Amino acid sequence: MQSRDIHLKRRPVGMPVPEDFETVVTTLPELAEGEVQVRNSWMAVDPAMRGRMNDAKSYIPPFALGAPMEGPAVGTVVASRDPGFAPGDIVSSRLGWREAFNAPANALRVRPDIGLPPQAYLGFAGVTGLTAYAGLLKIAALKPGDVVFVSGAAGGVGSIVCQIAKLKGHKVIAAAGGAQKTAYLKDTLGVDAVIDYKAETNLTKALARDVKAIGATGIDVYFENVGGEHLQAALALANPFARFAICGMISQYNVTEAPTVPRNLTLIMVKSIRMEGFIALNHMDIEPHFLADVTAWHKAGLLTATETVHEGIDHALDAFFGLFSGANLGRMLVKLG
Amino acid sequence: MQSRDIHLKRRPVGMPVPEDFETVVTTLPELAEGEVQVRNSWMAVDPAMRGRMNDAKSYIPPFALGAPMEGPAVGTVVASRDPGFAPGDIVSSRLGWREAFNAPANALRVRPDIGLPPQAYLGFAGVTGLTAYAGLLKIAALKPGDVVFVSGAAGGVGSIVCQIAKLKGHKVIAAAGGAQKTAYLKDTLGVDAVIDYKAETNLTKALARDVKAIGATGIDVYFENVGGEHLQAALALANPFARFAICGMISQYNVTEAPTVPRNLTLIMVKSIRMEGFIALNHMDIEPHFLADVTAWHKAGLLTATETVHEGIDHALDAFFGLFSGANLGRMLVKLG
Repeated sequence: MQSRDIHLKRRPVGMPVPEDFETVVTTLPELAEGEVQVRNSWMAVDPAMRGRMNDAKSYIPPFALGAPMEGPAVGTVVASRDPGFAPGDIVSSRLGWREAFNAPANALRVRPDIGLPPQAYLGFAGVTGLTAYAGLLKIAALKPGDVVFVSGAAGGVGSIVCQIAKLKGHKVIAAAGGAQKTAYLKDTLGVDAVIDYKAETNLTKALARDVKAIGATGIDVYFENVGGEHLQAALALANPFARFAICGMISQYNVTEAPTVPRNLTLIMVKSIRMEGFIALNHMDIEPHFLADVTAWHKAGLLTATETVHEGIDHALDAFFGLFSGANLGRMLVKLG
Repeated sequence: MQSRDIHLKRRPVGMPVPEDFETVVTTLPELAEGEVQVRNSWMAVDPAMRGRMNDAKSYIPPFALGAPMEGPAVGTVVASRDPGFAPGDIVSSRLGWREAFNAPANALRVRPDIGLPPQAYLGFAGVTGLTAYAGLLKIAALKPGDVVFVSGAAGGVGSIVCQIAKLKGHKVIAAAGGAQKTAYLKDTLGVDAVIDYKAETNLTKALARDVKAIGATGIDVYFENVGGEHLQAALALANPFARFAICGMISQYNVTEAPTVPRNLTLIMVKSIRMEGFIALNHMDIEPHFLADVTAWHKAGLLTATETVHEGIDHALDAFFGLFSGANLGRMLVKLG
């Protein structure tokens, strides 16, 4: 079997460009004992991949040059030389950016049929969902009455955060870019107030306006996906003892100049704010509870999968680039099979 | 009785200047029922006072214009019309910046004689000590093996943080400005490595050098008194899951331009760092435990009071201005009586 794989050819400086990558056609070798052959049906792209394109130490190693990149994928087992896997099994892996692969069994996870479509494991039932769930409930320690502010609210993680906060009865202020996204947040997800950051000249004033509009004194929880001016606004409007779950700072990933925002970091001390960074992989202890909750919420119609789908590996880079212009509503997916 | 009081005349812009203040001589009125008359023997100045000179909402109201400023003080009861106080009692209060005053009994706290000099209640046995103790042990949740980095390490709070971390067996890297302070930290307090920030061109490189010198991989706890480049260095050298206790950011208090550091805030997420701001007044629940510990440590010779003393209310502003040029070794005090 052949696979088209997307390799990292050179490390991007600032915003990645197509020349940083190349498509390589490979022929999969014979399966070795203990290996499984998988045809990917879906892959996802996410902002954190930008970090792995740098040659920098992080919680996960950088992508190697001249090798396929990695990322969340779900696929179907084609052949197996491991007793734990059989042809037809739906499996999730970190082996995206390719159409098919052979891998040792321990790189795969069988996803039993619990009535969810396969791509749900790249969204609300996967790491994306766990990120939203762990960040909001464990890191930010959401408690009754908290007012929640979410940046990147129409993205893969953000749209789940908004829904969990709403189904738990909280007032939610959601920031996203463009009229389509803010309409989706307000009309489909039912958040209480929206900020179109592309239409505002001062995010702090916009957030202050929305805090007032919903009858609140400030925000108690901030789910951070964006950084920069969004963080500055959250600090400015935070109530004492606010908790900030730092999931991502997409506005900063391609920045090559010294940032001049936030300029109000001293408010962390003034307001006794707790800011905590996290990654879902360090919170696998709550995954069983998480899966039970999100599956139940989905079946009850309280949690919707929002997806933006590109078709074919040839469009995987377009999907990735689109993350940085905010082209995705919900999770950015690539349908491969 | 007369008192010289220091009033805030106008709100400073940037670094305060003498013209922002004035000395007003007042004659204390007759004591009313329930009031106590106190002659201050010591007052302290601290960087947080700068915040109260602004007309900005904070955890504590701004100083009023045309009225005496406030701050930690300790004094002796001269006369009392409250049954809880008798002439000769040593009392602490928030009524510094004046030589004497009448106040309702609930603004005062009697300090029984437990063998400490009165000014200890402005230092290791007072809010300063509680700030160090709560920040290090409760907010940063110091645990065995943690490597501790302290900025503003030779100041009132920092010098106590260094001592508590050392007596608990930790490796400590301490940053301060100037050869006198770094010698004091190394020779008197026994920290493992020192950074003279005034002599370094790159604090991140300096901290990396010291981390290596003490055989560590990074820092686990950062006690933040300074902000800016110190915070940037701490983020750069933080181990995963590091905890930052944000006590102050003195480098930022008089800044009028947008800061361009730290430029590595995304590391909060990459390294799952927790940054938490706090003020001692929200941790009074641990005060009895704190007082017992510091008194015992002081008697055992493990905790030294380090003080820089100015004499007389006429030099209180010099003491305050000196905080921003780092003129103090340990707690900056003004002896009034």
